[in-house]
Amino acid sequence: MTLETTLAAIRPADEQAIAAARELQTRLTKPAGSLGTLEGLAVRLAGLAGVCPPPMPSPATVAVFAGDHGVHAQGVSPWPQEVTAQMVANFVAGGAVVNAFARQAGADVMVIDAGVAIPLHGGPNLLDANVRRGTRDMTVEPALTREEALAAVELGIAVAGQLVASGAKCLLTGDMGIANTTPAAALIAVFTGAGPAAVTGRGTGIDDAMLAHKTEVIAAALARHTPDPADPLGVLATVGGLEHAALTGFILGAAAHRVPVIIDGVIAASAALAAAAFAPDSVAAMVAGHRSAEPGATVALARLGLEPLLDLGMRLGEGSGAALALPVVSAAVRVLHEVATFDSAGVSEK
Amino acid sequence: MTLETTLAAIRPADEQAIAAARELQTRLTKPAGSLGTLEGLAVRLAGLAGVCPPPMPSPATVAVFAGDHGVHAQGVSPWPQEVTAQMVANFVAGGAVVNAFARQAGADVMVIDAGVAIPLHGGPNLLDANVRRGTRDMTVEPALTREEALAAVELGIAVAGQLVASGAKCLLTGDMGIANTTPAAALIAVFTGAGPAAVTGRGTGIDDAMLAHKTEVIAAALARHTPDPADPLGVLATVGGLEHAALTGFILGAAAHRVPVIIDGVIAASAALAAAAFAPDSVAAMVAGHRSAEPGATVALARLGLEPLLDLGMRLGEGSGAALALPVVSAAVRVLHEVATFDSAGVSEK
Repeated sequence: MTLETTLAAIRPADEQAIAAARELQTRLTKPAGSLGTLEGLAVRLAGLAGVCPPPMPSPATVAVFAGDHGVHAQGVSPWPQEVTAQMVANFVAGGAVVNAFARQAGADVMVIDAGVAIPLHGGPNLLDANVRRGTRDMTVEPALTREEALAAVELGIAVAGQLVASGAKCLLTGDMGIANTTPAAALIAVFTGAGPAAVTGRGTGIDDAMLAHKTEVIAAALARHTPDPADPLGVLATVGGLEHAALTGFILGAAAHRVPVIIDGVIAASAALAAAAFAPDSVAAMVAGHRSAEPGATVALARLGLEPLLDLGMRLGEGSGAALALPVVSAAVRVLHEVATFDSAGVSEK
Repeated sequence: MTLETTLAAIRPADEQAIAAARELQTRLTKPAGSLGTLEGLAVRLAGLAGVCPPPMPSPATVAVFAGDHGVHAQGVSPWPQEVTAQMVANFVAGGAVVNAFARQAGADVMVIDAGVAIPLHGGPNLLDANVRRGTRDMTVEPALTREEALAAVELGIAVAGQLVASGAKCLLTGDMGIANTTPAAALIAVFTGAGPAAVTGRGTGIDDAMLAHKTEVIAAALARHTPDPADPLGVLATVGGLEHAALTGFILGAAAHRVPVIIDGVIAASAALAAAAFAPDSVAAMVAGHRSAEPGATVALARLGLEPLLDLGMRLGEGSGAALALPVVSAAVRVLHEVATFDSAGVSEK
């Protein structure tokens, strides 16, 4: 599917299914509202699927989009750029945290080379779809051309479509890219109007001096390009990244197929803002897996109106927070499938 | 095991295993500290088990202790007392939320009649261990004799011991008992010194008038008995419940066997305070599954120094929050078992 046909396929949530799920929640053997956030989550997913109860979110796949960043040259990360490719190899070998969390949750992991700087060795679960070998330095020039950004968005759409065609009932966002919290912060600043200082964080762990420098780098890139939030493709091209653009397409693809997509951390949250700029109704497909320690993630989720399920001070990325949240999403949906009603169980009401 | 031998078996966490787990966390392919709360949790569980990595918390069982309460006569709940027995039947049939959440997490559910007012029909996963058919009304007289409270504590110890002997590597607390948030609030007030208003909540959903009345009922019971927090058995007897006392023993049993016990909501948190009063080192075995919407739970967890893993506004009880947290605990431990080191994966460090 092209971006255009994908956007045309995205529809609002189904109000009938929402009403049916709300009504079912009141008949199940539990006090009304006693499952807190999980009740509304299950109702939302019924609205997305257009049926009550909505399908269980299984099978599920974490799609880890990897890319490198020209802005790494500005000294915004203490990690060498080759770690992106090294971690991709770790994902393919099954040795990273996202692999362990996905195994725990019963999810698959797929790795997509959207824009890693170094040629990668293949593997059974690695898709070579490199759009270009890393972005350009956004402090000097646009990170991507519009054509490159569009190619990455449509890569994400294609991956979502392929997974749904293979039976996936839930998609999880993953990412890898040394320095990728810098374009994520820039994207969040553009789409929310927040200042760079409010959305820039320590990423994988930087000191005060590097944080101040990173914030200045982001401010400089924004000042150079003054991206227009009403033109999300232009924003992704000027200050985004290839994994950010691919994740935008992945989220839009999930929404077009009416399959939930669990948003991981700050990279995915920045892509979610881009997706919402393309298609506001795509938010109905989004589930915020966790509250990343990166401040930009909280700013982005607040703008999207999404309350994260977990808040554990995590800041790893990879899709780790999305994978950790999957059993919680499953539990919320499972209630609508399996819990007895007051009538069927012969339990008195108050 | 008797209470006395159980208390004698509870030892502090193993500092060597803690140091080994801390050191291992630094060598795994993730930025230091990037898994937030989960890193410290895995380290604590290594200290409990005395080995690094600690065992995966599987198989696991939710033990749902059920009891009724004489204080129900004071009008502290809008639900009729027979709902306790009806919900036990629902648990045994597998139709309650805790059953659905336990299936999601791969845990078993065991139901124990510790003190239900009505004789129950048996079932394959129902243990008939009724100590008495509900407590006495604590506003009029002590809820239990010391002998009854001890019998309930030792019931919980026996259940924990039986589950561990059958191979359980993690225990989860569950409870059922209409009006049981009232004795839970009383216990929390005694053990923390907090006033009744600070620890009394809406339970399964009561209005302002009933909340004010419930708070007065708790204050009246505390004023009548002035329980001594240094005498936890006396506290459980005067203002506790049979499921609260059994859960106290269950937690102490887990600690004696060095197996983690996931604390569910306010009932379990009140029992955890009683366990800590019996044996301060038992806290090393406790994992707070979630932050219940009941204010007393937060007061109790703060006193115990436990940070809950989930915070979803849940207030159901049954063990639902503990079951929901189990995959998160498993994920934290799994990291120490399965994630590659920087060396083994050939990933550069910063």
